[in-house]
Amino acid sequence: MQDLLKDYPSVVEIPVAWGEMDAFQHVNNVVYIRYFETGRVAYFEELNLMGYMEKTGIGPILGSISCRYKAPVTYPDTVSVGVKIAKIESDRLIVHHRVVSHKLQRVAAEGEGVVVIFDYRHNKKAAVPEEIKHRIQEMEGARQA
Amino acid sequence: MQDLLKDYPSVVEIPVAWGEMDAFQHVNNVVYIRYFETGRVAYFEELNLMGYMEKTGIGPILGSISCRYKAPVTYPDTVSVGVKIAKIESDRLIVHHRVVSHKLQRVAAEGEGVVVIFDYRHNKKAAVPEEIKHRIQEMEGARQA
Amino acid sequence: MQDLLKDYPSVVEIPVAWGEMDAFQHVNNVVYIRYFETGRVAYFEELNLMGYMEKTGIGPILGSISCRYKAPVTYPDTVSVGVKIAKIESDRLIVHHRVVSHKLQRVAAEGEGVVVIFDYRHNKKAAVPEEIKHRIQEMEGARQA
Amino acid sequence: MQDLLKDYPSVVEIPVAWGEMDAFQHVNNVVYIRYFETGRVAYFEELNLMGYMEKTGIGPILGSISCRYKAPVTYPDTVSVGVKIAKIESDRLIVHHRVVSHKLQRVAAEGEGVVVIFDYRHNKKAAVPEEIKHRIQEMEGARQA
Repeated sequence: MQDLLKDYPSVVEIPVAWGEMDAFQHVNNVVYIRYFETGRVAYFEELNLMGYMEKTGIGPILGSISCRYKAPVTYPDTVSVGVKIAKIESDRLIVHHRVVSHKLQRVAAEGEGVVVIFDYRHNKKAAVPEEIKHRIQEMEGARQA
Repeated sequence: MQDLLKDYPSVVEIPVAWGEMDAFQHVNNVVYIRYFETGRVAYFEELNLMGYMEKTGIGPILGSISCRYKAPVTYPDTVSVGVKIAKIESDRLIVHHRVVSHKLQRVAAEGEGVVVIFDYRHNKKAAVPEEIKHRIQEMEGARQA
Repeated sequence: MQDLLKDYPSVVEIPVAWGEMDAFQHVNNVVYIRYFETGRVAYFEELNLMGYMEKTGIGPILGSISCRYKAPVTYPDTVSVGVKIAKIESDRLIVHHRVVSHKLQRVAAEGEGVVVIFDYRHNKKAAVPEEIKHRIQEMEGARQA
Repeated sequence: MQDLLKDYPSVVEIPVAWGEMDAFQHVNNVVYIRYFETGRVAYFEELNLMGYMEKTGIGPILGSISCRYKAPVTYPDTVSVGVKIAKIESDRLIVHHRVVSHKLQRVAAEGEGVVVIFDYRHNKKAAVPEEIKHRIQEMEGARQA
């Protein structure tokens, strides 16, 4: 399972909630998007992106998300959610998410998000701050060391 | 069905979401608490409690909630959520919620919440503002007219 | 607003729940995926796809979903969720979803899902049943009449 | 913190999801009811109540739930959810739930549920099975040893 997440510098573990299974008896499709978000926010915490936002008014906004469902997850299980930033563009980050089931020992879902950098004070897109860019490069580089 | 909600001055309709059924094939117990909240907030909108809060820093905080489950709801269905304020105490409101299933034509759940009035600026409980008290009396009285 | 949904043969209305806004004070990104699902299931009801599944064991499974966020929705509001089936492939349906905010009078989100037709009894993909294909063509054709 | 949960034979840890905070910037009241459920189902797993249900058709149904909110939880945090069965009545279990915040080192919420034992095959209440009663006594006794 380690192998499935070795390219992901940030990984969080989430226990599957019984109540998040739907009438088809497996975790509802919507819940994976929540798993993605939880993983993504944990990565942003490591970048101190939320702290940066409070100081400057410049922060993330989700532009789009996609998810490919690979294997149904059922309770009881725990998932590991890996997140990596695959690309830094001028005003946005391309973020990869991967959900791995501990019980199945395989990828349950994966998907890509586009996170736009937004200047909430001036209400327009902003460049990815240099400070954040460097932290991302450290995070992503660390993984390859 | 009208009869089941005739004592409730505020009623909202919510379509049941298929994805909110759980592995037991009926709406998950947690969702009823969301129905209660949605009904309660609609009542508070009619009191302009949120507007009052923005102006004064004095607003509602949920102290406790209870729910008795009476009949399982299944998709497809629509529920009507009735809310009434059963009692105004010095620093709190006693709120009754009732969820009625259109398909079953009966009460699916009901419960009581205690909403404490809180002064967010001074971080302590506050008296129920006179202005709000009068609006509640109008709402609750209107129903009896 | 009618214009924004004129290509969508199935449209459902959903009131926005206050409690589904997140700490950024607008409806959380995950909730739009639930809106998509609710709209999609309503379309499937019109196809009697769930009834077909009970009879034959052949039913839908979500292969992937995507969502582009266009405008943030806030409480109070109501959204209309339009769904159309843009393409019928041998063993899958390409489904378009569009969420329109009544308050903003514009598209809040849209996205595409791939729904695979699955034979749950034999645990493998199946062809889109002719019966279902005809109903889809009726639904989609009706819109153009 | 250990002390706060020493009377609870079953405890699960759940990381707080950022997206489950609401517009008031703390975990939405509804989410605590999900925490309760997750803790309760974990206890039932230890009783093998779900296995018993598959074999006999006799299983749990939630009759009522209550929650007192004591301290607001915010992301990032982890909660421990303790569950104990306070009383075994002829056809029901009285279940206590307690949610402890790791960050606050105090009780964030607690509440009581009534779980009715239901014979799903004959569609009526049933006595708490002896087998289950003994397992509960072991669980609850173990804690006192």
